[in-house]
Amino acid sequence: MIKNEVEKVYALEWTGDVLKVLDQRVLPETIRYDEYKEAGGVAESIRTMRVRGAPAIGIAAAYGVALSVMQHYSSSSDDWQQKVAEDMQRLADSRPTAVNLFWALQLMQEVLDGNSENLIDKVRQVAEQIHAEDIKANQVMGALGAELLVDAKTVMTHCNAGALATGGYGTALGVIRSAYQRGLDTVYAGETRPWLQGARLTAWELAQDGIPVTLIADSAAAWLMQSGTLDWIIVGADRIAANGDVANKIGTYSLAVLAKQHGVKLMVVAPLSTIDFELTSGAGIILEQRNPNELLAECYSHEDSLVSAWNPVFDVTPASLITAIVTEKGVVMNPADKGLRSLM
Amino acid sequence: MIKNEVEKVYALEWTGDVLKVLDQRVLPETIRYDEYKEAGGVAESIRTMRVRGAPAIGIAAAYGVALSVMQHYSSSSDDWQQKVAEDMQRLADSRPTAVNLFWALQLMQEVLDGNSENLIDKVRQVAEQIHAEDIKANQVMGALGAELLVDAKTVMTHCNAGALATGGYGTALGVIRSAYQRGLDTVYAGETRPWLQGARLTAWELAQDGIPVTLIADSAAAWLMQSGTLDWIIVGADRIAANGDVANKIGTYSLAVLAKQHGVKLMVVAPLSTIDFELTSGAGIILEQRNPNELLAECYSHEDSLVSAWNPVFDVTPASLITAIVTEKGVVMNPADKGLRSLM
Repeated sequence: MIKNEVEKVYALEWTGDVLKVLDQRVLPETIRYDEYKEAGGVAESIRTMRVRGAPAIGIAAAYGVALSVMQHYSSSSDDWQQKVAEDMQRLADSRPTAVNLFWALQLMQEVLDGNSENLIDKVRQVAEQIHAEDIKANQVMGALGAELLVDAKTVMTHCNAGALATGGYGTALGVIRSAYQRGLDTVYAGETRPWLQGARLTAWELAQDGIPVTLIADSAAAWLMQSGTLDWIIVGADRIAANGDVANKIGTYSLAVLAKQHGVKLMVVAPLSTIDFELTSGAGIILEQRNPNELLAECYSHEDSLVSAWNPVFDVTPASLITAIVTEKGVVMNPADKGLRSLM
Repeated sequence: MIKNEVEKVYALEWTGDVLKVLDQRVLPETIRYDEYKEAGGVAESIRTMRVRGAPAIGIAAAYGVALSVMQHYSSSSDDWQQKVAEDMQRLADSRPTAVNLFWALQLMQEVLDGNSENLIDKVRQVAEQIHAEDIKANQVMGALGAELLVDAKTVMTHCNAGALATGGYGTALGVIRSAYQRGLDTVYAGETRPWLQGARLTAWELAQDGIPVTLIADSAAAWLMQSGTLDWIIVGADRIAANGDVANKIGTYSLAVLAKQHGVKLMVVAPLSTIDFELTSGAGIILEQRNPNELLAECYSHEDSLVSAWNPVFDVTPASLITAIVTEKGVVMNPADKGLRSLM
């Protein structure tokens, strides 16, 4: 069984033949794990945001491929390959922005292409390895990021880049977990409209681990910065371009501009699997638009309504607004200077 | 009967002996007017935000004083004065930030101090005059503000500074109404957490008047500005200091900083009754903190919860970030230059 034991919450649990997915749509009121034995179900759990967060999506997709092979593989014919390819397409189509999804599918494709003798064992093993290495990477990033916070008293985070968004421990919340053990004072979380990942997930996750957290409306962050008490903003990422531009939850760009104006530092914490070295800048990142009904009252969702909504769920923060990008291979300070090539 | 006939929605209706208050807590699903014959009820309707918006609060308070005098006045004794004073204290204690409330109570106090022969007629008449003049002021501001928008295609507003927040027609939405008749293209509204005045009230009010509106999450405003399509942000105000600093709904300061960075102009629209000439700067404005439960899931509202919330509902935007302040007595461009003394 692969799950992280450091913190009390985890998004994914793998039993060896079943993937259990915490349904994050119903947190914090309800804690329910859904069980999947087929890749189609895993793809649906990503599409419907039962599981979300770039690293967790990648891990779930890897297990989805393993389940597909376990279901369809046959040593006596080649028919299974078409079925696995269809499942992988389903997984690839589930969300567009997080690059970790495509990275994990690519790793699994390489296993399939390798013509291993014990293919089922092999896919299972690689998926478990992706999961275990993500947890390890987060613990390394937690320590590296916490080093940068030695003089910080107060931080803010946005969305949920925690154990719930990863294999375990978390990226931005991994840094906050590590820093809290070393004496970090105060953690603010933006509630993160429209899906309230901050209010529902980050608040719950930190409280489960005994870390006090203060929620604010997203639009109150500037006023908090203006008060002068905030030292760092710490966020995760859904895709990072080679020049250090970062796609992350809508509102990150807003926080980045405001942070720069108020002398607050901005840290992005993400594993190498989030970096898309093929993209020279953030301009090439596909940014998902979600259903306007996430913002609209039900009475406005009819066809001839005069009330519509614009609901981009990610934005791109230019490298020039970022103080540090923390990865498991090291920290890049002022990524606008030289981009991320040093991590390749 | 005093209500504005230009637009289809109104927050307050005065019948001569009853104040009808639209319950804005249940919009847009439910349209319900509560009726008040006593000042205590009016104070409660302000405190509970059935009626909100600085000018509307001032008008409601004026009618509250009229109702108090109508209830308690007696020509044969002076006991009524104590009861009216208590009612006025109740009204003054209902919300702290909007100066229009105190301005209206002051006007009504002057009537009481005037020892008029027909006191009941007189208080009723002054309250009706406050209401009617607010509507007229909004129409003047609508025209003045629309002049500034002749070349604008796309605007955004925050919170609700509309007919629902005033005697009728609205301040920021008055300008948008006027500009829309002259060819303004696109109106964005921030949903305005935590109370969703944008999503619930502004969207409803504009749609009632046939004006299409696109909602966005508050944190998406910066990304919208970055796209380069936004010309102006137009907001109301709860209190304006003599130097042009503006207290308004939380998130206004955030929009102002972001607007400056993106070359988007910022217009504040408010009647003279919103200007507090006794305050030299915004630093002296009392900013209301509301119940943290507006942000917290119910499971976090217990006493030993590790999850708390910081819920300031107003912030202060320095005059230096404001392009124009529009009042019924004229427009002050770049208020940081000379403040608002020219309007006195």
